[in-house]
Amino acid sequence: MSATEPGRLMFAEMTEQPAVLRRLLEQGAPRVADVAWQIAERRPRFVLLTGRGTSDNAALYAKYLLEVRLGLPCGLTSMSTTTAYEAKPDLRDCLVIAVSQSGGSPDLVASTTAAREGGAITLAVTNNPDSPLARASEYAIDVLAGPERALPATKTYTAELLALYLFVVALGGGDGTAAARPLPELAERVLARRDEVRQLAARYRFAERMVLTSRGYGYPTAREAALKLMETSYVPALAYSGADLLHGPLAMVDNVFPVIAIVTGGRGGDALRPVLDRLTDRGADLMVVGPERALAGASAGFALPTDDLDEELAPILEIIPLQLLAYEVTRARGQDPDAPRALAKVTETH
Amino acid sequence: MSATEPGRLMFAEMTEQPAVLRRLLEQGAPRVADVAWQIAERRPRFVLLTGRGTSDNAALYAKYLLEVRLGLPCGLTSMSTTTAYEAKPDLRDCLVIAVSQSGGSPDLVASTTAAREGGAITLAVTNNPDSPLARASEYAIDVLAGPERALPATKTYTAELLALYLFVVALGGGDGTAAARPLPELAERVLARRDEVRQLAARYRFAERMVLTSRGYGYPTAREAALKLMETSYVPALAYSGADLLHGPLAMVDNVFPVIAIVTGGRGGDALRPVLDRLTDRGADLMVVGPERALAGASAGFALPTDDLDEELAPILEIIPLQLLAYEVTRARGQDPDAPRALAKVTETH
Repeated sequence: MSATEPGRLMFAEMTEQPAVLRRLLEQGAPRVADVAWQIAERRPRFVLLTGRGTSDNAALYAKYLLEVRLGLPCGLTSMSTTTAYEAKPDLRDCLVIAVSQSGGSPDLVASTTAAREGGAITLAVTNNPDSPLARASEYAIDVLAGPERALPATKTYTAELLALYLFVVALGGGDGTAAARPLPELAERVLARRDEVRQLAARYRFAERMVLTSRGYGYPTAREAALKLMETSYVPALAYSGADLLHGPLAMVDNVFPVIAIVTGGRGGDALRPVLDRLTDRGADLMVVGPERALAGASAGFALPTDDLDEELAPILEIIPLQLLAYEVTRARGQDPDAPRALAKVTETH
Repeated sequence: MSATEPGRLMFAEMTEQPAVLRRLLEQGAPRVADVAWQIAERRPRFVLLTGRGTSDNAALYAKYLLEVRLGLPCGLTSMSTTTAYEAKPDLRDCLVIAVSQSGGSPDLVASTTAAREGGAITLAVTNNPDSPLARASEYAIDVLAGPERALPATKTYTAELLALYLFVVALGGGDGTAAARPLPELAERVLARRDEVRQLAARYRFAERMVLTSRGYGYPTAREAALKLMETSYVPALAYSGADLLHGPLAMVDNVFPVIAIVTGGRGGDALRPVLDRLTDRGADLMVVGPERALAGASAGFALPTDDLDEELAPILEIIPLQLLAYEVTRARGQDPDAPRALAKVTETH
């Protein structure tokens, strides 16, 4: 790829993902476990998670893990309650986790500082251990993804997911490294199928809107894929959990409405099945990303090599073909995935 | 309006809203306060809120109120953690609030039952005190909206908001009835301006997508307005908090992209101001719903008579012109707001 090729930064960083996951498993895991053990000793009873954009989707993934694996009730922060309304919540016994690639967004630093003053245990998960957010937090985890230069976040998303997985498993007294070990090689196999994704992308050359849906562990993937598609190709992409889709938005789906479903090979995928049947009944164009067996009956599909992977780890793999899809759709439209209009790498929201 | 006029049910129920709000203030408030006092004595430390579709947006409104007014950390439930993954969270000291028009959705009943088994204090906010959800919950509040027959929920949404407002204020030891007293008459004044909304609706006759944005207390309104537009007119409508809009989706907004901003007359509105400036810089077509002074510089606007109303009560009023807008856009397109394709009034998600 030449130095002026559109999307070369995004492409290079997507391609780095196997190496980033390997580095986190080999070099980062002990530090993640150490932080988790220190926090476990303080016995948090509730968890609040905070992030913006891509990191908010990583936070949502951690919410599922914390609730299902550890039975810890969780919430996602509405940041303006602190930054605009100056709420002073009582956060004793609460663990507050802020997820951020740069660790530089002023609102995250302000809300973390306020959480600490409110008695919370604070943890920053960032790609920059020297960032203001990491310094404002009592504990910090470095996702070790290396500098991210492309505007659309890719390698920092999968690194955040894996770091959060290792953290949550360790918080419960376990060790997630063995279960996660196959990920780097599986990610390599998915990345090698770029031509297949390019063919799928042709389908969306003229799409003017899109729905992404999933349930359970796959739902953060639906949201993150929608965000990638919007910020690179500018296709308005709506993400819904399968259940929420049935409560209203289903009405807008017709036979020229593209739907992409992320079907995990477990209970979330099972729960999505009736939703997919409803979509097919309505004549929706349905592309499925999931294990081979989930593709039957769909208009198109990308079969993931996840058969030997726990459902809870699948999100780290299943976003990769969708990152590639956003990249290829954007290239096909003659736009540059590295240079979405109107965006800056560190978004300074207050 | 004739018995066969498209949208007659939705229109009739929108028009009932002043009477519903009045009934809740006059007849429902004492019971709401009584429930709140009983729960306050049990000193919940964390609140989880659950709902689907319109009721999920009402739950989000309550989340802002609980966090800002009472400093209670809150989360919105990811229902599949219970219904698909059978998570057994430890919910001692947690108040779990389920919001539902019908009180009949099996997943809400299942998750409430599981929450009660997990030690939670459970509260149902429904329009049917004899519903399975109300019976499964330890406490129940009736929003007294009367039977809702139109598929798009309108009067039950504003009734849920007011019931939740009265509940949260009473939970904190106060009485919200005096502050809310102007609402029925203000709602009447907004409903009388149907012709003005019909003219605004012409603007969106050919819109193929739409963004709704707000911050703080106005954000649930943005989400609910997007849902109304989608389920009646089938326009894909994306709702973002102003801060989240800047983290990616802003890239897709250009000079033919319609944006509707809900600007509350308080800190949320102030925090939204820089976002509106960015949108205007990008040439977006911006319609503002908010107090008269917030309309300056916008492409179009609907001025709300909220100057004497607390910011936290404005959501009960500001959704009304947007319900009317969804109705008028749908009528203008020759569709029937009462009969969105593919939807049933009680959505049985599991």
